[in-house]
Amino acid sequence: MTIAASASTVMAWCDILAGYSEEPGCLTRPFASPTMHQAHEAVATWMQDAGMTVEHDAIGNLIGRYEANHAGAKTLVLGSHLDTVRNAGKYDGPLGVMVALACVQRLHARQERLPYAIEVVGFADEEGLRYHSAYLGSKAITGTFDPALLQLTDADGITMAAAIRAFGGNPDPEVLCTPRWHPDELLGYCEVHIEQGPMLEALNLPVGVVSAIAGQSRITVTFTGEAGHAGAVPMPLRRDALCAAAAFVLAVESVARSLPESVATVGQIAVYPGVSNVIPGQVALSLDVRHQDDRVRVQACRQLEQQAHAIATARHISASWQLLQEHGAVPCAPHLTGLLAQAIAAMGYPVHSLPSGAGHDAAILAALMPVAMLFVRCRGGISHHPAEAVAAADVDVAINVLERFLQLLSKSEVN
Amino acid sequence: MTIAASASTVMAWCDILAGYSEEPGCLTRPFASPTMHQAHEAVATWMQDAGMTVEHDAIGNLIGRYEANHAGAKTLVLGSHLDTVRNAGKYDGPLGVMVALACVQRLHARQERLPYAIEVVGFADEEGLRYHSAYLGSKAITGTFDPALLQLTDADGITMAAAIRAFGGNPDPEVLCTPRWHPDELLGYCEVHIEQGPMLEALNLPVGVVSAIAGQSRITVTFTGEAGHAGAVPMPLRRDALCAAAAFVLAVESVARSLPESVATVGQIAVYPGVSNVIPGQVALSLDVRHQDDRVRVQACRQLEQQAHAIATARHISASWQLLQEHGAVPCAPHLTGLLAQAIAAMGYPVHSLPSGAGHDAAILAALMPVAMLFVRCRGGISHHPAEAVAAADVDVAINVLERFLQLLSKSEVN
Repeated sequence: MTIAASASTVMAWCDILAGYSEEPGCLTRPFASPTMHQAHEAVATWMQDAGMTVEHDAIGNLIGRYEANHAGAKTLVLGSHLDTVRNAGKYDGPLGVMVALACVQRLHARQERLPYAIEVVGFADEEGLRYHSAYLGSKAITGTFDPALLQLTDADGITMAAAIRAFGGNPDPEVLCTPRWHPDELLGYCEVHIEQGPMLEALNLPVGVVSAIAGQSRITVTFTGEAGHAGAVPMPLRRDALCAAAAFVLAVESVARSLPESVATVGQIAVYPGVSNVIPGQVALSLDVRHQDDRVRVQACRQLEQQAHAIATARHISASWQLLQEHGAVPCAPHLTGLLAQAIAAMGYPVHSLPSGAGHDAAILAALMPVAMLFVRCRGGISHHPAEAVAAADVDVAINVLERFLQLLSKSEVN
Repeated sequence: MTIAASASTVMAWCDILAGYSEEPGCLTRPFASPTMHQAHEAVATWMQDAGMTVEHDAIGNLIGRYEANHAGAKTLVLGSHLDTVRNAGKYDGPLGVMVALACVQRLHARQERLPYAIEVVGFADEEGLRYHSAYLGSKAITGTFDPALLQLTDADGITMAAAIRAFGGNPDPEVLCTPRWHPDELLGYCEVHIEQGPMLEALNLPVGVVSAIAGQSRITVTFTGEAGHAGAVPMPLRRDALCAAAAFVLAVESVARSLPESVATVGQIAVYPGVSNVIPGQVALSLDVRHQDDRVRVQACRQLEQQAHAIATARHISASWQLLQEHGAVPCAPHLTGLLAQAIAAMGYPVHSLPSGAGHDAAILAALMPVAMLFVRCRGGISHHPAEAVAAADVDVAINVLERFLQLLSKSEVN
């Protein structure tokens, strides 16, 4: 009889996957790459060992299916993504696939079938590293993939269509854009993921239940004043674009602090001409605003747009506000998050609910099915960095919570 | 008999010089370049036409000498620089040489000699475009040139020594570092230059008398916080280096405004990692502080250093303060600026005294002789840009003021 997968198995699997990298000495595994192929071979073997049938879909998602205890049963989808950012950590993505795999392996070790089938998906692309277009895997599997993307080229000039074909997929838009499932046959999707933030660590909790995946607005704000000689233009006659931008950066922080659970970030700033002895004539900055409640996010953006103009007007300079991208929040399904909460409580841990500021495959899968997410504490809240780390003890909790969630869902399905 | 040079002559000369450019379609005339050679040929002809003897010194300064009315007389030095920045305006530098030349030409047209000799110098390099080391011409002529600079290479890998040799100069350090004059034989130096700032325009004055050339401190300030996911790190747990930098940029503006006649500028800012969805972990910025009174400048820097640390401490991040370069203010000589003021007043204009925030050859020549400067209004305070502009009427005033200054100096020397 097979030995049940443990946290140390999951940690070992994550270590093995981290070895499949396009860049020596660090972890970089883009969409449809040779090393993604190696990762698939390894995961497919582990899936088969866990009693699953394995297939690859047209975009390059890896799907393992563990059948239900009766024909015609519905399907619960588990998983996360197998691609990474450049110079990534080991856990953002792979951990969710491996925890799901461990739970199925435990069922298989006990020769247990549930009243629903489980499909564990390793999504082909969530980070968007290769084509600067994220969620390729989850979009294709839900039928929301935009075939125009197939013409995008990577840094080597290879189109996405060619990359899919080379990986063994099928870039035929008809096939790519057909959803894998009909909503009626689905119970939902549950994704385990590292938090990528410091809240669980601050609260000393191994796991947390995601309440919603935040909506996001991405804006470019440009302040245009007047360049001038840093020695020759007296302070009262200056129209310094960087001073205006500085006031705005502090306004962003202040507005975000004033609206509970909102976050707003200026991560990029470009100064023209950007010379030490010239007063900045123009400054463009990036603004990223997120909240799980779209009304709060829209309110924050409106306040900030007003403040940008007020700051500019007071300084006799101009401000422009360009909305680049916007998407609404995706609430997690209460009946699924409720089962996750029950599972956590049953293990003796306090249940902490928190929004996900980061986007996840779950947000895309929500187009087709109810979704839930379980966050796992990560050290220092660090992600997208080689220093990304999770404790084996926390992974153990995550496996046990997901395993209990599967049982609770069985009962709720039977009843 | 020669017709006396007018403002329109000076404007025409500046136009001709603007045609000698290393880059088509814009004005770029670096140190010891072929187009500097062409400019020298043109200016040397004009000097000779004005009754001057012409020579080139070892570094490539062009010097025209107009003899005094008696042997053994002292020398007054006039001039400015003939090199430019990249994509320059026509007047920063050349205007001062041409106004001086026009005054000598007027003396020559009247067959008038003064009780002192006049040397008009077209300095070889003030902007430092080619070797990123400014004031090469004025440093060599005053014996303050550092021979270590001869090993610097330009963008094409040509050493300064080779460039000087190719230009027809002499890179022998013994020769280069020997001052042209002994202080005892000098009356002083008077430089006409565009203001490069908006004060004269704001006051509706054609010219102004420079009180001092400001001292300058150049500092790099670095704030180090903690990078993090823009969606996943709640506002209260952030240590955003850009928010600290923003608070500091506003402190710089506030401190400079609070200290009369001081200027302080943040012209460059570098954000790491500089990605729209990552909280800035580190920000480095340039700080440029200037004042004509060194004590005020030092006080401003001390206040700002304290504020950088206070801002950092309050935000649980660190600040570092790195002084890159510092030089003291150079006061203009009261007896020379007094004569400039008399000349302006005699022409019926209000006398306005202002510091020069920008550096000038005069600051280097002050090592050897008393210096004075006359600023000419420039449109919009713009310089180092093709839009640099002066009005012919203002140039006319400048010529007349300098001409009268020469006469007043004659009397003051005779008395």
